[in-house]
Formats: sequence, structure tokens, C-alpha cells
Amino acid sequence: MAKKILVGVMGPGPGATDSDIENAYFIGKSIAENAWLLLTGGMPSGVMEAASRGAKEAGGLTVGILPVDNSVLASQFVDIPIVTGMGSARNNINILSSDIVIACGMGPGTASEIALAIKGGKQVILLNDMEESLTFFKKLSPQQVLIAENPDSVISLVQQFVDSFSAISIS
Amino acid sequence: MAKKILVGVMGPGPGATDSDIENAYFIGKSIAENAWLLLTGGMPSGVMEAASRGAKEAGGLTVGILPVDNSVLASQFVDIPIVTGMGSARNNINILSSDIVIACGMGPGTASEIALAIKGGKQVILLNDMEESLTFFKKLSPQQVLIAENPDSVISLVQQFVDSFSAISIS
Amino acid sequence: MAKKILVGVMGPGPGATDSDIENAYFIGKSIAENAWLLLTGGMPSGVMEAASRGAKEAGGLTVGILPVDNSVLASQFVDIPIVTGMGSARNNINILSSDIVIACGMGPGTASEIALAIKGGKQVILLNDMEESLTFFKKLSPQQVLIAENPDSVISLVQQFVDSFSAISIS
Amino acid sequence: MAKKILVGVMGPGPGATDSDIENAYFIGKSIAENAWLLLTGGMPSGVMEAASRGAKEAGGLTVGILPVDNSVLASQFVDIPIVTGMGSARNNINILSSDIVIACGMGPGTASEIALAIKGGKQVILLNDMEESLTFFKKLSPQQVLIAENPDSVISLVQQFVDSFSAISIS
Repeated sequence: MAKKILVGVMGPGPGATDSDIENAYFIGKSIAENAWLLLTGGMPSGVMEAASRGAKEAGGLTVGILPVDNSVLASQFVDIPIVTGMGSARNNINILSSDIVIACGMGPGTASEIALAIKGGKQVILLNDMEESLTFFKKLSPQQVLIAENPDSVISLVQQFVDSFSAISIS
Repeated sequence: MAKKILVGVMGPGPGATDSDIENAYFIGKSIAENAWLLLTGGMPSGVMEAASRGAKEAGGLTVGILPVDNSVLASQFVDIPIVTGMGSARNNINILSSDIVIACGMGPGTASEIALAIKGGKQVILLNDMEESLTFFKKLSPQQVLIAENPDSVISLVQQFVDSFSAISIS
Repeated sequence: MAKKILVGVMGPGPGATDSDIENAYFIGKSIAENAWLLLTGGMPSGVMEAASRGAKEAGGLTVGILPVDNSVLASQFVDIPIVTGMGSARNNINILSSDIVIACGMGPGTASEIALAIKGGKQVILLNDMEESLTFFKKLSPQQVLIAENPDSVISLVQQFVDSFSAISIS
Repeated sequence: MAKKILVGVMGPGPGATDSDIENAYFIGKSIAENAWLLLTGGMPSGVMEAASRGAKEAGGLTVGILPVDNSVLASQFVDIPIVTGMGSARNNINILSSDIVIACGMGPGTASEIALAIKGGKQVILLNDMEESLTFFKKLSPQQVLIAENPDSVISLVQQFVDSFSAISIS
């Protein structure tokens, strides 16, 4: 295959809400349906698990960058577990490896990934209902941070990014 | 010496404001005057440099956790450069190594460190005038995040933490 | 797909010999023909590039764990670039992520990966003609280190490992 | 203080021999007596603990780069614990942070550090009685690898390095 688009989906593990999980499942599924690759933090809980499950049900390929040191601890929906054994220092690898970053839900780990994405020059799409997080990150980088109203809108924004990205690659 | 208290001072490099630099200098100096160790990101700019300079002028000892791969790139005010060569993934080492974290100023790297500190169970003191950042991080973790009005108040909060920390260690 | 076997192929970049490159190409190709996934250090030179090229020519899927901080620096034969930005600290991720490790050729980076593989409890297959390296690593861990005479023998050893691994997983 | 020389002492933890521990204690003590800083892997066993204990008994300052994620797990003889939470990936930080590297004893972790030191362009002094390791690493890099007969000779070699290093810095 040619170099595929790697879409990172970040979000809480055990702290994910029902809505985060529903959104993550839809986003993961849509990523696979668009023939993009899904990249998550790889653990068997919350947004990571739900997005990976969605992608697998749609026949996609899933990558998980694990904070732990053994692949047996990965979500069963991760095809390619990358085992870092580095704890939260692996969050920066999640970001650097993603062509575009989606943050679904909110928590300390997710916040660190959004901030690292801005630092690393990535485009980030936020989907969550903590108004304070949207205001803060939008202020931190008005151009890199996009706010989505719902999972459909997330996928439209990724599609726009991929189109512009491909246009750049071709030219 | 007995195990000393390591106080981490995080903040922007080239993006630091004049006020951030003035505050960082005062904080670094006060850390040394209290016989605590200063830990920063070690680079020769902004908050890292100013805090380290302040600590050195007060006769303190300074540690810098460098994102780059050679100690010659460290601030001249860093006594002990730890060379990670890991870019922003080193932010998590800054946090894990600090007994308490001060965030002086705001930017994407600093935001990632505050978030990682919350994730890592650390107490974080914020000193900056971006209201949106204070609101967001306070919401993210009301108990771990403290907001200081000025550098004097930062040092008082560290002192309170150190006292409680010592009480725990002794008992 | 079900969890696939990840076979790590380590070896010199610019310092690879013609023979290393020929062997790496054959090994990469055979890995793909066996429907295993190839994992390398991902850079566009030496053993990493040759193994990835071999795997791609046989229709396989290739993962590259990059020491650098941008996927544009990856070998063109890497499908899934994992971007660490961590320099040689990423060598440990190569190892932890591989179900079994092949070291094709010899050099300082490769030697570090063999040692980390032993430390990490992995099986390692050595293929190189530096007698001193074979003697040393065999001494360091007689049971984890296997020595292959040629690339065919490397693949036979991987096959044996995969069979025993599958047997364990099933039972 | 001016930038001090950081001398890294690497070696086995639980796998250290009595002789390794005796040597490490002497080396740590001598490092402190020469007013150099000691850097180790920081854990409370083997060469790391013995070198740190030696340095502390001679009034020196000790840095420990921990693979674990909490400073309470450090050796009691470490003044400045750097907490990486990165497992063996931290071995590269040990190396990059050391101005010169001493490998006292032999094991997989130590072998990885010697190899990473060669990769990172550092001078390495070996002190151990596994002939195969001396032969291999000397072959891998005749110029960077020095072999010492005893701990006294290790310190003489460090002294020569420091003198040449200082000469370069002054000129």
C-alpha cells in the first residue's frame, strides 16, 4: 500500500463517559470506512478501546502505542501494538506519529496530548462538552485547534485535512 | 546531603513574556534561598534560563532536563544537565522528577507539563495571566491545581507543601 | 486480522555491508511471504531499508520505529511510520514491540538492541560474521541467543519460534 | 559551581558480583574525592547502589536516572533522583548525560549501555573479567573503548580524560 493517512484518536481510558465511548466508536468506524489507519494509545478501555473496536468492525487496521511494557496488555482490537514501556512519555509518540489528531473527551492525559500536538505543529480536532477546555485550547492556538459539534463533523474535518494534505503531496 | 526537595519550574522558552521572566528569576532565587533544588527544562531561554539564573545567583544548585542530545546546548546556569535527546517526550521526566511543579507563564509545552503533572498525581502551582488556562486546569483537577497571584504567593505555597511533605516523611 | 506476529529486524544503517543488505532483503521478503509483520528502525538506509523493501516486494506490511521526529524521513518502504523523536532511546521500543528479534549485521546500535532484547526477555537470532559478537552474546545469554548460518536458517528459526508461540497461545 | 564533570558508572543491579560491588564502591568514592559528580541508574542494588554509597561516604553528590516512575524507589545514596518511568529506554539518557562512561561488571543492561555509549560518541572504560565482552567491545570501537585492569586504573583513565577535556574547553 502507499503511505496511508494515520489518524490519531486520543481520549480518556477508564474516565471516558458513555458519550465519549459512543463517539469514539463512530469515529473509529468512519476512519476505517475511509481507508485511513487508526492510531490510539492502545489500552483496553475508554476511547482507545471503543475507537479500535469501531475500526475493526469496519475492517480497518489499528495501531496502538502502549504506555506499558507488554503487548498482552493491549486492547484486543489493536492489530499492531507498539510497546513503549514509557508511561505517559509515550503521549508524544502518539502525537508525532499522527497525521492529524482527534481528541474525543477530556482528561489530564488527553489534555497533555492536545498540548503536545499544538507544540508539535499538528492539527487537532476537539470533541467534548467541557466548555473550559474548548476555550482554553482555542485560545492557545486558534489556527491548529478545530472544534467539532459531533462525530460526523469530526470526520468531515479530517476529510478536508486529508484533501488539503494530498493536494500538497501531489504538487 | 539528605534527599532534597526538587522544585520543578516549567514555562515557555522563547515565548516567555517579560513578566514571566521576571517572575521566574524571583522564583528561582527564592528556591535556592530555601535550600531546595531547582529543576527546569534546561534550555538557554525564557523561564528555564531565568529561573536557573536566579537560583545560581542565590548560590543554589540547578538541574536541567534537556530535550536535545548534547549538554553544550544547556543554559549556562544549569549545573547538572540531564541529556535526554527525546524532544517533548522529556516533559514527562520533568514532572515525574519534581516533588512539586510550578508553571510560570503559558504555552503549549507548559500546558502539556501541567496536564502531565495532574496525570502523574503531582501538586501544580499556576502563575500566569491567561484566565482561560487557570479556569481550565482548575476545572480539570480542583485539588491538585493551585493558583498563585504573584511569585511571593508561589513560594508560600511551595513552603506549605514542603512542610506537609516533611510531616508525612517524618511520621 | 487477528494479532499478527511482529518480527523485528535490526541492523546497521549506513554501516551495513553488501552482504548485510542482501541478507536483510531476503529476510524481509520471507517475513512477508510468511504473513508476518516486519518491524524495523524505519530509516532509509542499510538493513532497515533493505528488509522493508524486501517485505514490500512480497506484498507485506512494514512498520518502522523512527528515531527522528518526522515521518517524511522514513524509508519509502515503511507503511506505518511510528515517530518517536527519541534518538537511540527508541531502540528499546523496537525490542519491546517485536515478538522475536533478528539482528542482521553488527554495529553499536545493533549491539544495543541485542543487549536490550536479552534484558527484555526476547529471543534473538544473530546473523553476522563478526565472530567476537557471536561469542559474546551467546555467552551473555546462551538460551535467548540463537546463531544462524544464513538467511534461510534465520527464517527456519523464526518459524520454529512462531510454532511454539502459537502452541502456547492456543493451550 | 562551574559545570562539573559527570562520570557515569554503569553495571549490573541484582546480578552484580562481590567483586563488581567492591570495585563500584571504590570507584564511586574516588569520583567524589576528585570532585566529579557521579551518575548511575539510581536503583538500590548492585553497582548503582555501591558506587553511590562510595560517593556519599566521600562527601560527593550523586545523580540517579531511574527506570521506574517514583523516586521513593531510588537508592538511599542518590541525592538527585531523575524519574523517567521509561524502563530500559532510560539507558540512553544515562549515556548521553555522562561526560565519560565506566562499565563496572557485565550483564545485558550494561552491555546495552556500552553499545549506546559507542553509538553516542562517548569514551567508555570497561572493568570486568568476562574476556568475551572485552574482546567484542574493543573490536566494535578500538578507539572509544578502554580496558582497565583494576579500579585504580579506571580512575587514572578518567583523570586523563578530564585533563584532555579541560584542555579542549580552555583552548
